[in-house]
Amino acid sequence: MSELTHLGASGEANMVDVGDKAETVRTAIAEGSVIMLPETLRTILAGDAKKGDVLGVARIAGIMAAKKAHELIPLCHPLLLNKVAVEIEPDETLPGLRVTALARVSGRTGVEMEALTAVSVACLTIYDMAKAVDKAMTISEVRLVEKTGGKSDDFHRGAI
Amino acid sequence: MSELTHLGASGEANMVDVGDKAETVRTAIAEGSVIMLPETLRTILAGDAKKGDVLGVARIAGIMAAKKAHELIPLCHPLLLNKVAVEIEPDETLPGLRVTALARVSGRTGVEMEALTAVSVACLTIYDMAKAVDKAMTISEVRLVEKTGGKSDDFHRGAI
Amino acid sequence: MSELTHLGASGEANMVDVGDKAETVRTAIAEGSVIMLPETLRTILAGDAKKGDVLGVARIAGIMAAKKAHELIPLCHPLLLNKVAVEIEPDETLPGLRVTALARVSGRTGVEMEALTAVSVACLTIYDMAKAVDKAMTISEVRLVEKTGGKSDDFHRGAI
Amino acid sequence: MSELTHLGASGEANMVDVGDKAETVRTAIAEGSVIMLPETLRTILAGDAKKGDVLGVARIAGIMAAKKAHELIPLCHPLLLNKVAVEIEPDETLPGLRVTALARVSGRTGVEMEALTAVSVACLTIYDMAKAVDKAMTISEVRLVEKTGGKSDDFHRGAI
Amino acid sequence: MSELTHLGASGEANMVDVGDKAETVRTAIAEGSVIMLPETLRTILAGDAKKGDVLGVARIAGIMAAKKAHELIPLCHPLLLNKVAVEIEPDETLPGLRVTALARVSGRTGVEMEALTAVSVACLTIYDMAKAVDKAMTISEVRLVEKTGGKSDDFHRGAI
Amino acid sequence: MSELTHLGASGEANMVDVGDKAETVRTAIAEGSVIMLPETLRTILAGDAKKGDVLGVARIAGIMAAKKAHELIPLCHPLLLNKVAVEIEPDETLPGLRVTALARVSGRTGVEMEALTAVSVACLTIYDMAKAVDKAMTISEVRLVEKTGGKSDDFHRGAI
Repeated sequence: MSELTHLGASGEANMVDVGDKAETVRTAIAEGSVIMLPETLRTILAGDAKKGDVLGVARIAGIMAAKKAHELIPLCHPLLLNKVAVEIEPDETLPGLRVTALARVSGRTGVEMEALTAVSVACLTIYDMAKAVDKAMTISEVRLVEKTGGKSDDFHRGAI
Repeated sequence: MSELTHLGASGEANMVDVGDKAETVRTAIAEGSVIMLPETLRTILAGDAKKGDVLGVARIAGIMAAKKAHELIPLCHPLLLNKVAVEIEPDETLPGLRVTALARVSGRTGVEMEALTAVSVACLTIYDMAKAVDKAMTISEVRLVEKTGGKSDDFHRGAI
Repeated sequence: MSELTHLGASGEANMVDVGDKAETVRTAIAEGSVIMLPETLRTILAGDAKKGDVLGVARIAGIMAAKKAHELIPLCHPLLLNKVAVEIEPDETLPGLRVTALARVSGRTGVEMEALTAVSVACLTIYDMAKAVDKAMTISEVRLVEKTGGKSDDFHRGAI
Repeated sequence: MSELTHLGASGEANMVDVGDKAETVRTAIAEGSVIMLPETLRTILAGDAKKGDVLGVARIAGIMAAKKAHELIPLCHPLLLNKVAVEIEPDETLPGLRVTALARVSGRTGVEMEALTAVSVACLTIYDMAKAVDKAMTISEVRLVEKTGGKSDDFHRGAI
Repeated sequence: MSELTHLGASGEANMVDVGDKAETVRTAIAEGSVIMLPETLRTILAGDAKKGDVLGVARIAGIMAAKKAHELIPLCHPLLLNKVAVEIEPDETLPGLRVTALARVSGRTGVEMEALTAVSVACLTIYDMAKAVDKAMTISEVRLVEKTGGKSDDFHRGAI
Repeated sequence: MSELTHLGASGEANMVDVGDKAETVRTAIAEGSVIMLPETLRTILAGDAKKGDVLGVARIAGIMAAKKAHELIPLCHPLLLNKVAVEIEPDETLPGLRVTALARVSGRTGVEMEALTAVSVACLTIYDMAKAVDKAMTISEVRLVEKTGGKSDDFHRGAI
């Protein structure tokens, strides 16, 4: 019943043909978190208060990575992103940082992977910039929040 | 006391100088999981039993991504990886797949980011290849397991 | 009469303007072979019977390379591939492996170079993975098999 | 007896550990040909006589591709090339162009793949620049000519 | 009154949404110079007279770089270039070389950055190839000359 | 007397052999400016006072570009940068922004091109982020300031 769309008739992995899909505006939103020690969060935010660099660098890294999703993920189609935005918010209940990314395209294939790649690389960049003080940080709950605009039903987390 | 090593005297983000570090053999191991519906796992494993493709493609994507860590993460140093290995194991208790990556270098800087990037991109690839049947999959618990060989104390998760 | 389309009026190499070409579905199929010792082929196929890795890795490398054709070939236009597929078959009469790649686009320029690049890189990957047992392997007969969908006449090898 | 060095104990593809190899000067020379119609060769050479562009562009493309071998070939190690040179000579007996590439490194792993990648991409570039006049060109006899400097015996074609 | 279009409501840098822009033919022309010692120019031109290499390599580097503008410039959109051309002319009054680049697209966003990137990288390549004889060369006056085809008024230098 | 080191005996462009050069610590510092309207500078700095983004993004773009110099510049050797730093200062006398970049390596070849590439791409990024308010900005005086650590005499601008 279910079907892995990247697998061909004989089971080999190949990029599926999206030529018959309609060119529509498609949007995806993904999220993820970096969980850390409370003092790591304070150090990042204190630095951020002064210069904004950890969050700023991670946001840029996420945006640039969205443009590379098709280079990183073997069967992902190249596409012309209309927009990428990345937001990073502290959350003391984790404690840590919450990353959200939005990707949008006018194209024949969805942008879930672009949004998820932006989140993952922004999280990796946060890890890289703060690892001198906390190597035990964990990247967690990287997932799709919302997907709209394609032929298949829209997806909203919690309404599966 | 703590210090974000990528921030300069005036707080701007810059690649730190690793020229004074010793050239030693450094190893890092990272792990992560993709949590999915039980039937998604069954579908992947059934495909894998026949052709090995979902796991095989994700493993290759992870290895190739390790070589791109310094392109993705802004302040990460380029380095000459001696070895990268990625393993993917099913775990029905998640239910889902556990990804482990090892990176090793003879160099002046650690390979945590290479191992973590390999894990993250292998997980993204699993998501990409199975998203047609399960958009709610979550990438979780991406973290460093072990780091040895540099000047700072070795790191073993659980022994922080 | 004939004309090298990448050369300008004064003979300098430049990317030609494809803006006036129609946006149509264009397909190209290319092929190539890796010729090797009979025992090298047996070793690869035995490994493949168990894990599928040599052929599987080469197929993924070919697909990913198709997406990089415009980065490798200086005057090649970037384009949004709809589909890439790579097949690898053993042929004991070579003896060796035959690689076939198909590339398809809805665009203003043909995809011969994408299909040929996929074949070439899949062949190089086969060489890389088996060179420990056979350095004398030869990559041969890399060529276009078929091209359809553009303004110029379709091309079918044997019907030039 | 023989062994595919990229396959691990359990047969999965992974980058092998080169950390124990000696850092020596290693050189590889590879060659290949583009076979074409006699008038295609004349057109290229006439253009070359005036501006040198087809051969010049292909040579540069080959050199740049050598630096990308580890990005294209999944299990290939990154390395710091000391030198890359590409030569292209007409051969009316083919008729066509013969491409030769040399790669050299001071490192822990051989440079066969860099030399072979340079040859392959130079050949693809020749095809791209002349395909408007001859789509039936064939890339042929891409192979290693010589390999010196590593621990394993030197390789010279014809002396296997 | 004025507005930096890459800054969001809250001032963070993000790729702006170009989805509402019309898909039109857009062209940009940029220019720049490399100023050098008179004998450096003579050396380059003498070499060029014989083999065309310094200018030829710089021209190719500029064309290839235009295709990478969106990878280099964080908030720049990927696009499908229809055409890129780079011209390099000696100017003894500098003394030095003048570089001009044209980029054209049928798309939703302008190609100023592609033309400017082509000029910058062609200039850097000239510097690289001649730095053995003149390290004091200066890259200067890199700027937009003309921009046509978008919704905003056309731009012509001197008519601001 | 003078000699273009990238040209071979027969004048073709090739990557020169750096295998005989000593592995020493080499540093290069480069600079450049973006000249703009006084109100453009005020707008950038006002934005910067609030969020730091234009300067922050340009600085990150410059650092990441230094790691790509060998991909952009055809005959440039890959190397393992120890450190890259980019500083951007306003200068009302231009009026505009002054960019300075430092690159350092322990290696066999100089890092002038890495420092100059960092400056050029930081300047291009400033242009990109402010072009909505000022398309006439000019990138100027991109040049080497200082080079130390190689076999050839050190270079200091003004002391040629």
